[in-house]
Amino acid sequence: MHFLDGTEPGRDGLLALAERALDLRGGAAPRRRDGLRLAAVFLNPSLRTRTSLEAACGMLGIQSIVLQPGKDAWALELGQGAVMDGLAAEHVRDAVSVLGGYVDLLAVRSFAGLLDPEEDRADRVLAAFVRHGGRPVINLESARWHPLQGLADTATWLAHLGPDLAGKRLALTWAPHSKALPAAVANQVLLSAALAGMDVTVAHPEGFDLDPEVLDRAAAHAPVRVVHDQAEGLAGAQVVVAKSWSGFSGYGRRAEEAAARAALSGWQVTPDTLGVTDGAGFMHCLPVRRNVVVSDAVIDSPSSWVQEEANNRLWTALAVLEHLAAGL
Amino acid sequence: MHFLDGTEPGRDGLLALAERALDLRGGAAPRRRDGLRLAAVFLNPSLRTRTSLEAACGMLGIQSIVLQPGKDAWALELGQGAVMDGLAAEHVRDAVSVLGGYVDLLAVRSFAGLLDPEEDRADRVLAAFVRHGGRPVINLESARWHPLQGLADTATWLAHLGPDLAGKRLALTWAPHSKALPAAVANQVLLSAALAGMDVTVAHPEGFDLDPEVLDRAAAHAPVRVVHDQAEGLAGAQVVVAKSWSGFSGYGRRAEEAAARAALSGWQVTPDTLGVTDGAGFMHCLPVRRNVVVSDAVIDSPSSWVQEEANNRLWTALAVLEHLAAGL
Amino acid sequence: MHFLDGTEPGRDGLLALAERALDLRGGAAPRRRDGLRLAAVFLNPSLRTRTSLEAACGMLGIQSIVLQPGKDAWALELGQGAVMDGLAAEHVRDAVSVLGGYVDLLAVRSFAGLLDPEEDRADRVLAAFVRHGGRPVINLESARWHPLQGLADTATWLAHLGPDLAGKRLALTWAPHSKALPAAVANQVLLSAALAGMDVTVAHPEGFDLDPEVLDRAAAHAPVRVVHDQAEGLAGAQVVVAKSWSGFSGYGRRAEEAAARAALSGWQVTPDTLGVTDGAGFMHCLPVRRNVVVSDAVIDSPSSWVQEEANNRLWTALAVLEHLAAGL
Repeated sequence: MHFLDGTEPGRDGLLALAERALDLRGGAAPRRRDGLRLAAVFLNPSLRTRTSLEAACGMLGIQSIVLQPGKDAWALELGQGAVMDGLAAEHVRDAVSVLGGYVDLLAVRSFAGLLDPEEDRADRVLAAFVRHGGRPVINLESARWHPLQGLADTATWLAHLGPDLAGKRLALTWAPHSKALPAAVANQVLLSAALAGMDVTVAHPEGFDLDPEVLDRAAAHAPVRVVHDQAEGLAGAQVVVAKSWSGFSGYGRRAEEAAARAALSGWQVTPDTLGVTDGAGFMHCLPVRRNVVVSDAVIDSPSSWVQEEANNRLWTALAVLEHLAAGL
Repeated sequence: MHFLDGTEPGRDGLLALAERALDLRGGAAPRRRDGLRLAAVFLNPSLRTRTSLEAACGMLGIQSIVLQPGKDAWALELGQGAVMDGLAAEHVRDAVSVLGGYVDLLAVRSFAGLLDPEEDRADRVLAAFVRHGGRPVINLESARWHPLQGLADTATWLAHLGPDLAGKRLALTWAPHSKALPAAVANQVLLSAALAGMDVTVAHPEGFDLDPEVLDRAAAHAPVRVVHDQAEGLAGAQVVVAKSWSGFSGYGRRAEEAAARAALSGWQVTPDTLGVTDGAGFMHCLPVRRNVVVSDAVIDSPSSWVQEEANNRLWTALAVLEHLAAGL
Repeated sequence: MHFLDGTEPGRDGLLALAERALDLRGGAAPRRRDGLRLAAVFLNPSLRTRTSLEAACGMLGIQSIVLQPGKDAWALELGQGAVMDGLAAEHVRDAVSVLGGYVDLLAVRSFAGLLDPEEDRADRVLAAFVRHGGRPVINLESARWHPLQGLADTATWLAHLGPDLAGKRLALTWAPHSKALPAAVANQVLLSAALAGMDVTVAHPEGFDLDPEVLDRAAAHAPVRVVHDQAEGLAGAQVVVAKSWSGFSGYGRRAEEAAARAALSGWQVTPDTLGVTDGAGFMHCLPVRRNVVVSDAVIDSPSSWVQEEANNRLWTALAVLEHLAAGL
């Protein structure tokens, strides 16, 4: 039993976890599991994910041990059968097997490399944790997914839109950024919203497309529409989620994409942008580049759900840990 | 209720905290607060501050979570209204708001930049924690202050000079160093000693002046004298505190200051230096450049209180945590 | 009472610790020591050592605080009487004295520099912890020794070869690597095996010799033979331990050694290599360069004890902590 893309518990299970998170937020007592141990491996920076995970572990009596390969632990080799005469001192399969022997739960963050689409689709670090760890694995954001974020978003939707999310209108809009970013959060919003039965519109400029496989997976659960005009995409939305990402078809031509991105500052979410919505709440996973992705006037306004969304990370991490620990 | 410059509890409150620290050192039982959580954010290195804080948290049952933005967490933007198209991925106000939602207490270290006096006076990182955190904030050394050090020093003075510090003679001497250093510790010694009613002399070479605002604040509590001759400053002192700092009037001319500093190795504290004192104890906050700031013969002598001073950091951190937790 | 080279408890004490580790592995209840604190200082990367130590601390209720001087804490000066006008901000004796005042147990990792044989023999960082810490010190791998690894290996031998290790045949073979590596693990295997009474053969190419002092120490306990032919060394072995190391006589001529090493890929441990043994188990301390040191076909085979060896690190760390804590 893992938590890799957030769909593992199924639609009902996922909604139950989000409701549980809201109960915990409201003061319900966490189901402690003193004596368990979790190893959390970060190949990329983290503020919310690590802090909320460690805090949730503390609330449950679970010891959390954080490792950063390449910084405090050995740099990892991923290649199957590799002749390890390069920089990496340890194969991920050995590292993961060992950690699995020391702890009860594993967690890992490993962002997309953005160099090779099949490599990112394979999500090899996460896959190695599943294959070699022998323990439940929590995905702390992989090349493709960020399920703890998706669950926090789901809890936020439930808190604002009520228990029946079916047919509620969510718009996911691409936003400007000075760097090429992975699409994991965008993929996850799409999948989590569709799984919850929401009516989803994705708005992005031409060339900043999401992986068609991900779109297909989402579309199997609920209506998903893609448009290339932001105002069209946001019209009538009850929730607007902003995120920058690099195009799935842009692998191999990042320089060209960067040039295109430089001309797209008009996609910044401002109060005007939100004028076409149905009084939508504004969401972003953070960290956010203020006045690039979204203006201060939006993120600091009463219609911003951003702080609540981030705060829900604590309660959803707690709910997921309770859930996985219950299976041990 | 914060602990930003150490004056928040007032003179009596501060002395009571120092006395409480000595009681804890003597074996008094800490007042545990199991279930609380603290996030400690370090923008600069730390040995004593982090270790004593984490140890004190452990003694109280408080979970401590340490973050290092730019290393394990996102680099922070400080500018109000900034267009975040530079290196920083997250605005401090967002980071702090989020952390405040995950924990009960916040703590932060952010040294002076030494580039702009008004910037350092503004202590913007610390101020952002206070403004956006919604939790008691402990200053782990900011651009201007190091109140946990000041309290440990106060406890050390009480242990050696007795419960009535009024009129006791403390000399704070500038000392040589190969680098330009912030004045936060010097400011704090001055303020803490003055608040305790001690008779304070500051000795420093011309051009290595402290911020006149800080001198004025200290002088409002007790006699403060500034001299430019080390022997004159140390004559008759019961306590000598050594520290290197860069001059407040030296902002903008650091190269010139470095040249001046190179000619000031005679300010190193040696056994001879202490000959003019009234058998003074020697103090330094550590880390210390041995045989640059102070000779081995002083720091390793029986008149060195340096190790006790550092050890008191544990007990004063414990007292401050008890104090702030009592307000929750 | 320290744990520096693993011989401190004596032969019987060491075997008893290894047996205790196996009991703990089998489900025996750890002897908790809630309220103790340990500071673990890492000057080099770690995966197994830190994770197993922190996990073992958690199982005993001991708070573990991890420091990385030069990364999160101040870079350390080692020189006695040094004039500290270089990069290091803090002398190791001050750092260690302070840490010893905050915690009950100290632990430190500091690899060999491989530049000066006498410097590495002196094991100065470890020695500073012993001299200035005032607390039991656990060596987490020093220039010369890795006693927690040695104890985990001993537990693995006991588990596979039975309680009487006297006369059991262990071969320690040098292995190829792209970098010059310290000999600490090789030294430790040799010493631990000899102390347990095993019949030890060391096989290494000419020029890749171990420190004669270490060989002499081992030979005082049990038969130790050195050969320069791998097949000769492994013939009849019941355990094969592989490790790369740089030659003790190679200090000062590492470039020459690197050239020699490049021609020694034939020392890689493969299924063929093990054909001459008595069905030996294969061991390596990890991290291991797969298909350089050892082929996948060996390390992933049923005769590989590598994962068990790594897993025993948890239980032996637990046994050592119990043992040292019992003396407090």
